Amino acid sequence: MVCCFTISVLSPFDEALPMAVGTPIIPELPAIAGFRAAATACGIKKNETLDLTLVAMQAGTSVAGVYTKNRIVSPTVTLCRDRLKEREARALLVNSGNANVSNGPQGMLDALSNGKTVADQLGVEDRQVFISSTGVIGAALPVHKINAAIPGLVENLQPGNWLQAARGIMTTDTFAKVAVRHSQIDGTPITMVGMAKGSGMIHPNMATMLAYLFTDAAVSSELLQTLLNRAVQLSFNSITVDGDCSTNDTLMLFASGAAPHTPLADEDDPRLAPFAEMLNDLAMELAQWIVRDGEGASKFVTVQVRGAQDETAARQVAMKVATSSLVKTAFAGSDPNWGRICMAVGSAGIAIEEDLIDIFLGDVQIVNRGQRDAAYTEEQGQAVMNEAEIGITIDLNQGEAQATIWTCDLTHDYVSINADYRS
Amino acid sequence: MVCCFTISVLSPFDEALPMAVGTPIIPELPAIAGFRAAATACGIKKNETLDLTLVAMQAGTSVAGVYTKNRIVSPTVTLCRDRLKEREARALLVNSGNANVSNGPQGMLDALSNGKTVADQLGVEDRQVFISSTGVIGAALPVHKINAAIPGLVENLQPGNWLQAARGIMTTDTFAKVAVRHSQIDGTPITMVGMAKGSGMIHPNMATMLAYLFTDAAVSSELLQTLLNRAVQLSFNSITVDGDCSTNDTLMLFASGAAPHTPLADEDDPRLAPFAEMLNDLAMELAQWIVRDGEGASKFVTVQVRGAQDETAARQVAMKVATSSLVKTAFAGSDPNWGRICMAVGSAGIAIEEDLIDIFLGDVQIVNRGQRDAAYTEEQGQAVMNEAEIGITIDLNQGEAQATIWTCDLTHDYVSINADYRS
Repeated sequence: MVCCFTISVLSPFDEALPMAVGTPIIPELPAIAGFRAAATACGIKKNETLDLTLVAMQAGTSVAGVYTKNRIVSPTVTLCRDRLKEREARALLVNSGNANVSNGPQGMLDALSNGKTVADQLGVEDRQVFISSTGVIGAALPVHKINAAIPGLVENLQPGNWLQAARGIMTTDTFAKVAVRHSQIDGTPITMVGMAKGSGMIHPNMATMLAYLFTDAAVSSELLQTLLNRAVQLSFNSITVDGDCSTNDTLMLFASGAAPHTPLADEDDPRLAPFAEMLNDLAMELAQWIVRDGEGASKFVTVQVRGAQDETAARQVAMKVATSSLVKTAFAGSDPNWGRICMAVGSAGIAIEEDLIDIFLGDVQIVNRGQRDAAYTEEQGQAVMNEAEIGITIDLNQGEAQATIWTCDLTHDYVSINADYRS
Repeated sequence: MVCCFTISVLSPFDEALPMAVGTPIIPELPAIAGFRAAATACGIKKNETLDLTLVAMQAGTSVAGVYTKNRIVSPTVTLCRDRLKEREARALLVNSGNANVSNGPQGMLDALSNGKTVADQLGVEDRQVFISSTGVIGAALPVHKINAAIPGLVENLQPGNWLQAARGIMTTDTFAKVAVRHSQIDGTPITMVGMAKGSGMIHPNMATMLAYLFTDAAVSSELLQTLLNRAVQLSFNSITVDGDCSTNDTLMLFASGAAPHTPLADEDDPRLAPFAEMLNDLAMELAQWIVRDGEGASKFVTVQVRGAQDETAARQVAMKVATSSLVKTAFAGSDPNWGRICMAVGSAGIAIEEDLIDIFLGDVQIVNRGQRDAAYTEEQGQAVMNEAEIGITIDLNQGEAQATIWTCDLTHDYVSINADYRS
């Protein structure tokens, strides 16, 4: 019914506003040896909403991290980058509701204070505590509220408490993003659980993407870092909602080493493949959940570019299509406007040959060697565009390289969420 | 059943939908010796709307041009680029309603055919005729309709007929964009008139920007090209509506040389300065009209970055702020959300020092050396944001270079125009 749809979609104060593409899947999340988690409402957010998550880790837990490329960052990002050098993590503390950004030197003092409280309560070293913040920029961190809540969190730490932990890091997410994978190393079962947040920002929050992965595998920190750098390229660096890059974006991977297999430390170790596959797969699932929960998203769009001369070129073309406002609004309007896709392909800054390009919308060929395919009908394109999940394939026919980027549409809801909503 | 909100704001068929910031100014446009113009409705557009413009030029008219960087272009762009080598223009033909893009080899044949008809009718050489197309992508050009209309156009050519010419190149513009400047060379009065189109695209048109400048000054084609390359940087390359880059973007400058002064041909000629100033100023005015008529725009925003180490860095930061969807939606919501500006500054890819940054909204200092200014109140920021014309100044305090970019906000109307409107 059109009217209801309009009401529910356009009012920024309507609870139904944020939409997700598809139905969220919350799997059973097993305990992972070496980790315990808890979350609480410490009072940063209103209405007793969970806003503080703590994960405690056993001694010897390896750690790797990838952080935002923004030049303006939260002191928590600076701190995490520095503490990665320790190659051991004993705790992760994440608060939501306040990003602790643009707070000057006090911001760092506050982050250090929170970290020290965790260290004291858990009996570990300060430098083994990793911290993230997400939420309002430029508001003083309620450091005392956070410190006051830490003893209670420590008391409530429990194995397998991942879903609550995931809820504690949410800001404007419409659902908790969690996923799990199982694999084996030397016949020993290993497990990886991941949680992520990110969808967008309701004033005055930022579109921070945070993701944390936990495994009982035994992998050195150096090797974890190498694997994480690869995984991020295929997952969190291959998604886009609005092209903006937050001050706090963080992805971390923790490996407790509790699984009884001989530790992995060598990049050439053949036992690495199933672990890397598990990691890549889990990261990709979490990244896709973020796009599905993109601000105002009503379509989940997979942009695949193939036939490029190299992967960089393929990624550049795919990213240009996936971030074009004109392409994204065409999806919002279920409009098979392939001229906009051509425009975006041509403006990617890659030396392409127009006469070679093929473009498919779903399985329907629209462009054949740079021209509208003779057999294409608008009805065929329309049928694909009416779906909630859409694939675009662009074949440059210039080489063998390919890349895939996931994006969502640019809707009225995106503007409502970011322009109309006032906190 | 459609809700009233939908009717009043969202209906793409509501006449009030396209908005412009400020009131369009249509100045008196004088005849310029050496030029005659006409426009007609040849039937590309519906409802007898003007869709074909012809400007005829006297022998010896110099010409310069700057074109889209998109790799997929209309054959008219290819043709213009090639014909610039002739260094002489006798005619300009522009059709609106069809972009003649993605039409394969036939597109070039059609463009050549239109050009030849103009050449034959005016008794000039084919290679002295410049052509542009703007409108639908991937639809065959109605070449015969255009050719059939050319004799009538030639018959109706008149001096000073600029406003009609400007109307003939419009697509989704809500008003004709024209401007005029007067100056002197050696005491001889010279005049420059400009016309431009561009604001956005209503399905399935592209956001093509076309602009043409005409002067009676006597300047060599080589020198015109040098001056135009500089002018475009400060004007059409310093505006952004949605960050997309069309297949047909064109800026051309024609100088008839009818003014009785010794011709300018030397870059070091001191008489050049007032001419260059006139050109830059006129180009900047036309560029700003395009932003003011940006799709769905309700705010005209000037982003100035100063204190940068070099101009490239200043431009990069200003462009990042001016194209950020988060910043642009904040303007749409009149939301003094300075955290988003910080985010954009930090993500521009420039080595900035957060502790040095000052940010002003209008005259109000919001950020002082990287932190919220102690004296800043939300009310002050809100007062500035409520205006239709807003200036942001970002002082990086790292050097002496500066750059200015003009942009507009990202509104519900932008999405309506680009997503909801179906032709």
